Amino acid sequence: MRLSPAQGAKDTARLEAFSDGVFAIAITLLILEIRVPDHSTVPLAQSLLQIWPSYAGYAVSFLTILIMWINHHRIFRYIVRTDDWLLAANGLLLLLISFVPFPTKVLAEHLLDAEARTAAIFYSGTFVVTALIYNLLWLCISYKGRLCDMSAHGGEIRAITRQFALGPATYLLCFLLAFVAPLASVALNFAIAVFFLIPGNKLSLGPKGS
Amino acid sequence: MRLSPAQGAKDTARLEAFSDGVFAIAITLLILEIRVPDHSTVPLAQSLLQIWPSYAGYAVSFLTILIMWINHHRIFRYIVRTDDWLLAANGLLLLLISFVPFPTKVLAEHLLDAEARTAAIFYSGTFVVTALIYNLLWLCISYKGRLCDMSAHGGEIRAITRQFALGPATYLLCFLLAFVAPLASVALNFAIAVFFLIPGNKLSLGPKGS
Amino acid sequence: MRLSPAQGAKDTARLEAFSDGVFAIAITLLILEIRVPDHSTVPLAQSLLQIWPSYAGYAVSFLTILIMWINHHRIFRYIVRTDDWLLAANGLLLLLISFVPFPTKVLAEHLLDAEARTAAIFYSGTFVVTALIYNLLWLCISYKGRLCDMSAHGGEIRAITRQFALGPATYLLCFLLAFVAPLASVALNFAIAVFFLIPGNKLSLGPKGS
Amino acid sequence: MRLSPAQGAKDTARLEAFSDGVFAIAITLLILEIRVPDHSTVPLAQSLLQIWPSYAGYAVSFLTILIMWINHHRIFRYIVRTDDWLLAANGLLLLLISFVPFPTKVLAEHLLDAEARTAAIFYSGTFVVTALIYNLLWLCISYKGRLCDMSAHGGEIRAITRQFALGPATYLLCFLLAFVAPLASVALNFAIAVFFLIPGNKLSLGPKGS
Repeated sequence: MRLSPAQGAKDTARLEAFSDGVFAIAITLLILEIRVPDHSTVPLAQSLLQIWPSYAGYAVSFLTILIMWINHHRIFRYIVRTDDWLLAANGLLLLLISFVPFPTKVLAEHLLDAEARTAAIFYSGTFVVTALIYNLLWLCISYKGRLCDMSAHGGEIRAITRQFALGPATYLLCFLLAFVAPLASVALNFAIAVFFLIPGNKLSLGPKGS
Repeated sequence: MRLSPAQGAKDTARLEAFSDGVFAIAITLLILEIRVPDHSTVPLAQSLLQIWPSYAGYAVSFLTILIMWINHHRIFRYIVRTDDWLLAANGLLLLLISFVPFPTKVLAEHLLDAEARTAAIFYSGTFVVTALIYNLLWLCISYKGRLCDMSAHGGEIRAITRQFALGPATYLLCFLLAFVAPLASVALNFAIAVFFLIPGNKLSLGPKGS
Repeated sequence: MRLSPAQGAKDTARLEAFSDGVFAIAITLLILEIRVPDHSTVPLAQSLLQIWPSYAGYAVSFLTILIMWINHHRIFRYIVRTDDWLLAANGLLLLLISFVPFPTKVLAEHLLDAEARTAAIFYSGTFVVTALIYNLLWLCISYKGRLCDMSAHGGEIRAITRQFALGPATYLLCFLLAFVAPLASVALNFAIAVFFLIPGNKLSLGPKGS
Repeated sequence: MRLSPAQGAKDTARLEAFSDGVFAIAITLLILEIRVPDHSTVPLAQSLLQIWPSYAGYAVSFLTILIMWINHHRIFRYIVRTDDWLLAANGLLLLLISFVPFPTKVLAEHLLDAEARTAAIFYSGTFVVTALIYNLLWLCISYKGRLCDMSAHGGEIRAITRQFALGPATYLLCFLLAFVAPLASVALNFAIAVFFLIPGNKLSLGPKGS
């Protein structure tokens, strides 16, 4: 079945809708991992405060997935057709996005105990891999203009390529920091998420300003 | 990429669809937190009745999120374009909506024990913050007609601004009531949700009647 | 904001999409309630067989929600505009649909023990209430042709009204049967779901054949 | 209500959207079943490594459901109208897709203990049944060109029929292998998923290359 441009647009739309579904579910499932300790001997108010690492993990993971969704949304604007490579790369990305609630739970449970370092390494390592897959997805779209229109948006596309290359580097920094200062690593992760969400920081928020 | 009006409409549509996904998932996850006590010594029928705070929490949270979805739906009608501020404000709102199942579970578990006050404060406090973020989102859309068309719908938009200002006040009342009468606070929360759902109470159900 | 017909259609579409989301999530969450007993002393193969009530509950609830989705889908074809009553009635229906995983879990855990009767009554009772709300929703659409076009589809609409009236009666039968024969009640529930799914049984599958 | 072609396309679209929702949720729920053992006496890093069967089960099930979604997406391109048989067959398929997280959890928990064989048989057996239902769905679409346009796409449709017949055979091989070598069976399942995801292996990735 040779696809018409209209069918190609419909294909892209269904891929976007499916991806949006996975993003939305992964982001919402995060809350299920927050739990008050069962047989707590301290007052509830104190318990609710003591589990602040759970809130921190929830917020950092939520905002990070949100930014990844925003970027996903942005890069899909440039896609003019899909192919099997795109389906595979996008599938790998979703596999990583769906995985995030697990390291988030591990982080929340161990951020304050002796295993904080392992938990923070595991957590930030997940984002390093995710950022790498993100670049793979973008490469699959932009390499020699495979699935996008370089003649119309070449400058913007090259700008995104430069911006996205910073992603893995940033998360690698968090990853390395986790080895020496787990709490600082999570704080940096949070700072990155907030920075990217603040309007005007065009670094990750995409093509509009280029 | 300078967006055409059609692209702008598509952008708004995808943001709406993603938000709808998060609302739908958060509202449906509430049921997972209802549990019959494990090693109960009372008959099942009695157990099912004794956990009425779980049903109450489920119903209040469900209806409250539903009303927030309805309002979200209504205010997005006025949006003619998106920008980074809208993405950020909407993201914050979704972070709060997704959080609701957690205070709901805490409330259900403690509404009948000595910690009822803490649980009800935590629960109603979540809605105060959510209502404030709602106003932030609306401000981001309506302030000086940033993302909407004031010349066509100015009167309605100003009416919504006045109506929405009541939201935080109402939930603040529940919050304050929780300090002295937790059960009454939840009952008021329920009454608010039902009131807003009854057709004709245009207070929150939006622009149609203005 | 007086809505144009196009805006009315968009409104209905978003309400449908949100409802579809809740149906899809509720139907998929059912699986989370199936568990193999933790410290089982019997072989795994035997454990997997012994929890057949969990599979039965899963299948009956899945198919019942599926049929309700199919019917929802069908009746929304007739809607030409939405109003606040429709939003409220539809919201109530979704509250019930989202609730189904809980009685399903209770049923699966107790179908083979001394509490089978209570569990089956609770389970089938949920469907009685759901079927009543379904009729309320339909009334809200069809009463005096409020939200549909009676002049074009009057005959079909009256046929649906007659068919839907059978729903609560059928589930009431399951409910009453649960008092004397819990297993038979669940079996009847299953039979109803399968009957409605078999093409040609137009009773519930809607307007096409009328 | 005799449906116009436009209404028929809308019907198909809503069925696709609902199915996409179920696929997206089932694929994302898989992560909830991964758990670090509670009262572990080994370091966290070791625990995170020891639960590798959980990661394996997650990856295999995720990729398998993803491929099933991609195929679902592809075959729905050929559908020109829906009918009650399609709704029923598609419903059965979704019932199986939603079920996958349960055998995945059983597999993850037992892949390394004495019950590995039972777990692998249960796991691969689920995919055999799913592949059979897939063929039933396709039969329901393609048999004598019931719901598709044989005159326009006859060659492609017959090619898909041949390709899909291989599905149950492939999963049957995994199933049989599970009786003698559980680990090898899971590895084969993984290999199949990866093979089908690699662009160019048109076996399952559908009509484009025929």
